[in-house]
Amino acid sequence: MTQSRKLRLGAIIHGVGSSMSTWRHPDILSDASINIEYYKQQALIAETGKFDLVFIADGLFINEKSIPHFLNRFEPITILSALAAVTSRIGLVGTLSTSYSEPFTVSRQFASLDHISGGRAGWNVVTSPLEGSALNFSKKDHPTHGQRYRIAEEYLEVAKGLWDSWEDDAFVRDKESGVFFDPAKLHKLNHKGENFAVQGPLNIARSRQGQPVVFQAGSSDSGRTLAAKTADAVFTGHETIEEAKSFYRDVKQRAALYGRSADELLIFPGIDPIVGRTREEAERKYKEITDLISPETALKYLGRFFDHHDFSVYELDAPFPELGDIGSNSFRSGTDKIKQKAKEQGLTLRQVALQTASPRSGFLGSAEEVADQVQRWFEEEAADGFIIHSSVPHALDDFVELVVPILQERGIYRTEYEADTLRGNLGLSKPVNRYTKARQEAEAAEQHAGRAEVEAAASAARQG
Amino acid sequence: MTQSRKLRLGAIIHGVGSSMSTWRHPDILSDASINIEYYKQQALIAETGKFDLVFIADGLFINEKSIPHFLNRFEPITILSALAAVTSRIGLVGTLSTSYSEPFTVSRQFASLDHISGGRAGWNVVTSPLEGSALNFSKKDHPTHGQRYRIAEEYLEVAKGLWDSWEDDAFVRDKESGVFFDPAKLHKLNHKGENFAVQGPLNIARSRQGQPVVFQAGSSDSGRTLAAKTADAVFTGHETIEEAKSFYRDVKQRAALYGRSADELLIFPGIDPIVGRTREEAERKYKEITDLISPETALKYLGRFFDHHDFSVYELDAPFPELGDIGSNSFRSGTDKIKQKAKEQGLTLRQVALQTASPRSGFLGSAEEVADQVQRWFEEEAADGFIIHSSVPHALDDFVELVVPILQERGIYRTEYEADTLRGNLGLSKPVNRYTKARQEAEAAEQHAGRAEVEAAASAARQG
Ligand SMILES: Cc1cc2nc3c(=O)[nH]c(=O)nc-3n(C[C@H](O)[C@H](O)[C@H](O)COP(=O)(O)O)c2cc1C
Ligand SMILES: Cc1cc2nc3c(=O)[nH]c(=O)nc-3n(C[C@H](O)[C@H](O)[C@H](O)COP(=O)(O)O)c2cc1C
Repeated sequence: MTQSRKLRLGAIIHGVGSSMSTWRHPDILSDASINIEYYKQQALIAETGKFDLVFIADGLFINEKSIPHFLNRFEPITILSALAAVTSRIGLVGTLSTSYSEPFTVSRQFASLDHISGGRAGWNVVTSPLEGSALNFSKKDHPTHGQRYRIAEEYLEVAKGLWDSWEDDAFVRDKESGVFFDPAKLHKLNHKGENFAVQGPLNIARSRQGQPVVFQAGSSDSGRTLAAKTADAVFTGHETIEEAKSFYRDVKQRAALYGRSADELLIFPGIDPIVGRTREEAERKYKEITDLISPETALKYLGRFFDHHDFSVYELDAPFPELGDIGSNSFRSGTDKIKQKAKEQGLTLRQVALQTASPRSGFLGSAEEVADQVQRWFEEEAADGFIIHSSVPHALDDFVELVVPILQERGIYRTEYEADTLRGNLGLSKPVNRYTKARQEAEAAEQHAGRAEVEAAASAARQG
Repeated sequence: MTQSRKLRLGAIIHGVGSSMSTWRHPDILSDASINIEYYKQQALIAETGKFDLVFIADGLFINEKSIPHFLNRFEPITILSALAAVTSRIGLVGTLSTSYSEPFTVSRQFASLDHISGGRAGWNVVTSPLEGSALNFSKKDHPTHGQRYRIAEEYLEVAKGLWDSWEDDAFVRDKESGVFFDPAKLHKLNHKGENFAVQGPLNIARSRQGQPVVFQAGSSDSGRTLAAKTADAVFTGHETIEEAKSFYRDVKQRAALYGRSADELLIFPGIDPIVGRTREEAERKYKEITDLISPETALKYLGRFFDHHDFSVYELDAPFPELGDIGSNSFRSGTDKIKQKAKEQGLTLRQVALQTASPRSGFLGSAEEVADQVQRWFEEEAADGFIIHSSVPHALDDFVELVVPILQERGIYRTEYEADTLRGNLGLSKPVNRYTKARQEAEAAEQHAGRAEVEAAASAARQG
């Protein structure tokens, strides 16, 4: 842990929440997922709390069994662009799948968001867990887990290449001479790979961040490797600090294999803070939410991780069923964890379903207690920061009002933004444009060669 | 012309403009194409002028010969979403190509923009004129002009189908009963066509406009037919009122063939108003801009219509060259016009290039004179409204400040917004959801059958 290591925070704005039932709570706005005022308000609360970023999740397939938030929500690029116009410092990170989109369009949209927001854009790269997505995109089959990650890797190569199309100072705009740009600083990518052929250049300048921040949100082996190679940050989720620490260690070690230092790849577990003025109040809040979850809705919710598998056909109070390969081409890291836990703890289907459908309760208690947990995870290197979920009413407001001041007092969290770009606040450096770098290296080599020549001549003269 | 026919206005926000050289004028912000403050300010000026809409053009391929605005500009979906957050009444219309995108994503993004803006979204459907676009989208060939329009037609069918996935009142959100939505009001599209297979449903509710407004911007025969079948509005461009009237008549007649009334399809020519306190001032403004255009930049500009054809190889003062098929798979309607005019008027390459690179001067003069032209085109049915280009500095401000009040005084233009959706202001009705309509028709038929039965029984009773 370096001296300057500072906690980072993000808020996932997620409408009526990640559950089947939270929307039924009297204090929840039941149309929150499609309410622009709600999204603005949440972003502004997070900005008041000096959060690094807001985060928008996404999905590309629904059916009548999907959770309420998924049925009817804003599309990430549009909502983040709108939020860019009404916020000034907070980062704007959106989820977009590399399995069902075009790198030219997507890198362009994130670059445009980066310009609109003055350097606050981030992209959460996902590969789409749901098989049904293929049906909405004129594809015969959902690519396999392995294929999806190979596509994602090539896709990111293309996107990063396109973001370097223009060097930082390419646009001269000299009215006198009539030179709008320097053609030597415009570069075609000419990518030709297994999945993509993209010539470029991108039709938008490099932005203040150089490149938007790249998050990655797959936690399987392939997901971790992709993150280690190419991402700036990882969005993940864990139930225990031990699990989180082992994930953290593993991903940082993988990054080191690719020659990257630990602080170039930040790990953000998602947590569900449930804060009360007292522990009892927090427990009451938790119970109000879990009381809304019926076994039927819990089964539906569980099914979503297993690619909409129908769990209602099994006996509720029998041991968790053997599922074989079901769902393994979907949320692999999630389903593996669920299966393993059920086996280890000998849980019934009802228990697994209710636990899966309930918010994680590891960050529940008084503000002091929640701050303790946050600090502990951070200092023991289970996390570089957290993505705060709102799983109970007013979760974000409570966190900002009650927990943030404690973290600030303890000196582990900022009291003012350090920078005006997302990269700057995350402590990530601005990537140098690849062509600028090559030129600088060539010039340095030339100078070096030049110096060597002069020295050789001088030495020859001395000797002669 | 019906009694209630009212002039509509849109403003194209187009950064440093559609020319090679306007950016060099001392009063032009040379980074306007990528300046968020400029875009906000223009949108707010247009809203002050009670404009129906702002309009964002687009393109998917650049090279070192492209005009400055194209090299480095905002992507339409992102900039319109940002503008949605800082405006309240004006429509937000963006260009998006059906040749290089996915209907699920695009219909979703426009639906999301429609929700974010409270019913102000519009989509300008284009098929992409530039061959090079294929190179940025992993495609071997740019589809032919005919193919592009066949794709566009099927694409719009899919988009409109997806926009009807949810009936208007599908989301019940009854906390007591736990019913979030009515499954009878959720519909899969199950589209399977020549180019697309899209199951649906879309993961976003129907919006206040029902469906975003659809513009179409191709003026060839295929373009007109597509507009007549499926669009709400057409964006076009003409040099003379005669040409505009003949286009207007032709498109309205085509719409009638598809059973549509004249006021269901609005025609918007783009114009370049150049307004002065006096005619001399307007002429001076025009000259300041044309003086910046060198023959070389004019040739480059001309080349863009012919798919970046290199015109510098021809003699400048010889008759306009024979081009054969060059550019015919690109801006067909535009290149046809240029060739025809060159032939008819016996123009040299220099003359054609300079004329093409200069703003159209048909709407130049004092505010009264420009208002006269606007009124004439409108009343003689050359236009239902106009898209205002900014081809000289402060063109939009001048138009709003000087011309709009005259149009309002003359009673042909609104003094206050009539509605809070773009459809409402354009006088277009909200499309009824196809499934709601089918149900209503079925119910009406049943009632009718029921009544017939009752009447038959009564009549039988009377006779018996
Ligand atoms: C914490 C977390 C958040 C995720 N968020 C999303 C999301 O918003 N949208 C999405 O399509 N997939 C999301 N995923 C799914 C992954 O991106 C990936 O598609 C899937 O989990 C399979 O990859 P994996 O097996 O590597 O985890 C998320 C996964 C994790 C672990
Ligand atoms: C007034 C007007 C505006 C246009 N705007 C765009 C645009 O912003 N982006 C684009 O790709 N094509 C644009 N086009 C091109 C057309 O959409 C179409 O792709 C091309 O002109 C070929 O169709 P056509 O031959 O039917 O005109 C425009 C065309 C016209 C006539």
